[in-house]
Amino acid sequence: MPSVLDQIRFDAAGLVAAIAQQHDTGEVLMLAWMNRDAVAETLATGRVCYWSRSRGALWRKGESSGQVQRLVELRVDCDADAILVRVEQTGVACHTGRRSCFYRAVDGDALRELTQPEVSPEQLYGAHAQD
Amino acid sequence: MPSVLDQIRFDAAGLVAAIAQQHDTGEVLMLAWMNRDAVAETLATGRVCYWSRSRGALWRKGESSGQVQRLVELRVDCDADAILVRVEQTGVACHTGRRSCFYRAVDGDALRELTQPEVSPEQLYGAHAQD
Repeated sequence: MPSVLDQIRFDAAGLVAAIAQQHDTGEVLMLAWMNRDAVAETLATGRVCYWSRSRGALWRKGESSGQVQRLVELRVDCDADAILVRVEQTGVACHTGRRSCFYRAVDGDALRELTQPEVSPEQLYGAHAQD
Repeated sequence: MPSVLDQIRFDAAGLVAAIAQQHDTGEVLMLAWMNRDAVAETLATGRVCYWSRSRGALWRKGESSGQVQRLVELRVDCDADAILVRVEQTGVACHTGRRSCFYRAVDGDALRELTQPEVSPEQLYGAHAQD
């Protein structure tokens, strides 16, 4: 695994963009960031872990909400500066309660919502921080 | 359209990450970057335009290779700091001649190639710069 980690080109902040995709449907769920520790933990545990830029800490997806992502496959792009994690998403990926974070599309000169929340943020997090 | 552009949160460098996905198969083709002008041009022309960080210039995908991306839908994520462009990809997206840039997967402690080039870079670019 160290050789894989050494091949990834982290940016000046030590991060790499990571796209999460539901492995069987192809749905793009979210885009987040990983540092070297997050990639290593994801590969070691099989549960996807990101780096939260806002919290400045490892972000074990679903730790408080239960909406975990099981790793199916981790892919690296041609320049090794982007990652695609193919996952089995439990429940919803978005903190708004929607399956995917990409729930708005350009429609004329505005953004139109494509989906509605499947659960409420309160159901997901209670008094906890969002993850 | 200005109101859509004003809703996107570009980073300190004026960029936003953009995922390109083949609209009908769900295949994730590549990850690149857009600035405000690239988003505006993409929406105005229906042909996907990125910002090349290495060249410091607008990157009209396929301009030299012919491997253009026709915009089907442009989505924005919950934080408005990532874009998903659902596209009709002509030919291959990757400068290596592969359909997708994400052609390598972690396999044990190494990266394994999942696909082979469909065309050679020479066929794609001749003496031109890669796009």
